[in-house]
Amino acid sequence: MPKKGNKPNVVVIGGGTGTFVVLSGLKKYPVNLHAIVTMMDSGGSTGRLRDQLGVLPPGDLRQALVALSESSQIWRDLFTYRFDNGDLSGHNFGNLFLTALSKITGSVTSAVSLAESILNARGRVIPVTLDDVKLCAKLKNHTILEGEALIDVAEPGRSPIKYAFLKPEASPNLTAIKVIEQADFIIVGPGDIYTSIIPNLLVNDIGSAVVGSRAAKVYITNLMTKLGQTEKFTALDHVNTLEKYLKKGVFDYVLINSVKPPKELITWYKKSSDTDFVKDDLKKTKKILRADLLSNTRYEQSLSDRIKRSLIRHDSEKLGKVLFNIISSIS
Amino acid sequence: MPKKGNKPNVVVIGGGTGTFVVLSGLKKYPVNLHAIVTMMDSGGSTGRLRDQLGVLPPGDLRQALVALSESSQIWRDLFTYRFDNGDLSGHNFGNLFLTALSKITGSVTSAVSLAESILNARGRVIPVTLDDVKLCAKLKNHTILEGEALIDVAEPGRSPIKYAFLKPEASPNLTAIKVIEQADFIIVGPGDIYTSIIPNLLVNDIGSAVVGSRAAKVYITNLMTKLGQTEKFTALDHVNTLEKYLKKGVFDYVLINSVKPPKELITWYKKSSDTDFVKDDLKKTKKILRADLLSNTRYEQSLSDRIKRSLIRHDSEKLGKVLFNIISSIS
Repeated sequence: MPKKGNKPNVVVIGGGTGTFVVLSGLKKYPVNLHAIVTMMDSGGSTGRLRDQLGVLPPGDLRQALVALSESSQIWRDLFTYRFDNGDLSGHNFGNLFLTALSKITGSVTSAVSLAESILNARGRVIPVTLDDVKLCAKLKNHTILEGEALIDVAEPGRSPIKYAFLKPEASPNLTAIKVIEQADFIIVGPGDIYTSIIPNLLVNDIGSAVVGSRAAKVYITNLMTKLGQTEKFTALDHVNTLEKYLKKGVFDYVLINSVKPPKELITWYKKSSDTDFVKDDLKKTKKILRADLLSNTRYEQSLSDRIKRSLIRHDSEKLGKVLFNIISSIS
Repeated sequence: MPKKGNKPNVVVIGGGTGTFVVLSGLKKYPVNLHAIVTMMDSGGSTGRLRDQLGVLPPGDLRQALVALSESSQIWRDLFTYRFDNGDLSGHNFGNLFLTALSKITGSVTSAVSLAESILNARGRVIPVTLDDVKLCAKLKNHTILEGEALIDVAEPGRSPIKYAFLKPEASPNLTAIKVIEQADFIIVGPGDIYTSIIPNLLVNDIGSAVVGSRAAKVYITNLMTKLGQTEKFTALDHVNTLEKYLKKGVFDYVLINSVKPPKELITWYKKSSDTDFVKDDLKKTKKILRADLLSNTRYEQSLSDRIKRSLIRHDSEKLGKVLFNIISSIS
């Protein structure tokens, strides 16, 4: 627990859109925010930069930076701008910015630190590792998938994932270990279990630091299942899968949305991407927190974005408010 | 002449490396600096962005912005950084920055204005036109070349240029006209006559605004001839060619370097790019100013830069000092 008068230290672990929403919601509150993000992305603009320029993947860093930004709108627009034609088609300007900064400074840590300053970030963004490693998955049919992009984009009928691992092993970013140790509150998720959350926990010492931390730990369950990762998963399946990479019963709280999205949207999801609304089969105990966390905004798919983005999303304001209430109640 | 106590209004007309050197040299002095730059570039990174993304060419704007920048080194490093691999190979980060800003704000004027602010520019950068036009050249053998890149990169033995024109005609950027009208001092060159200087003068009303301006006008001659543009040109040939697009005797001063570069460098130039040191055949009159303007720095060719850069260059400090002396003497 933080000392009286001090702002609580909050650590958010994940990557992608889920972490973006949590950070956007929490940055308005008096907390010390730290985002630990996965460095295993290998798809889209990030994958091309990683393959062709040998930089660490910028995509998840960029999303967290934009979420925390309190600079003028133009900077946030720039960092989310995606080129739609030619050689640059699909490339995100924020990714190019972080890549160029990494190349010039020779370090992703310096690049992120400069970007934090340019974007006037209301918190720190911490790559979970500075090692260049591949996310791999062993499927139940014994196939091994190498690379995050391959795991992320599944065809219907693909054998379920048995477990995920890194190749080679990754050393933790010591700053990540430090902020976990000093955390009062650790938030895991929401986000794709195997491609946004677990990659963090696979880095040496990160999982055990989370388990050993004196912080209160909350897991925010996903709204929708994901083809090839969490097909037919209930809320409990999500918790159980995640705990395999940490420790049974590690979460002090599980936060789950209590409002069903419009039926036609769920139908559209089923048809277009074989995914479904996650069934809430969690028991009614003190550690299970239910609240309306659903966004009423409908997100449109960008045509130049080669990766599918979720349309049923958590609402950052609702999520931020509920999370800060929990943080306040235990501080 | 400026009112007593006011800083003189200085307008630099050109583009590319020559204008970069003049602006870098002059920004340290108490003058109101305005750079009017060509918008006809169609080669390299700029040409690809122009072709593929339909933006106005950012390259000459970017170089002038960096020259005027007084922000931290990292920003200048970013704006001059060139990607060296993959889809992005050869693309300059500053060009991508201006392109993304133009796309987001919907206007090159807003993009330049934001970049001036980010780069803490000690002066204004003004696109000579906001029209999307092509630079063309009619050769003495009646061939017509369409596009700046085609004119810029010549094979040995190409028929000399008879005259240059724009296709279609271009309206001037009214800000360019305004600063020319209010100028106390207009600097033309150095720079490639047909691809950096004349494109500005071909824009409707720009040439006549320069001729009609009450400002003192100086032309800075080039150090080296250029294959396909100014082969075997003496200093006088440069002045005469330029005056055809303005008016005979329009320059109050012609500034020319008086120091010969090392013999081995000239030999290397002759062998590698069929160019030679420009012979000074200007008369000894009050309007011809001779000074040591030569840089002692040797510039290396960047491998990822697809365009050849000049290695024998003007020295920005020497040039700035001489120019400010002239400006002071007439103010």
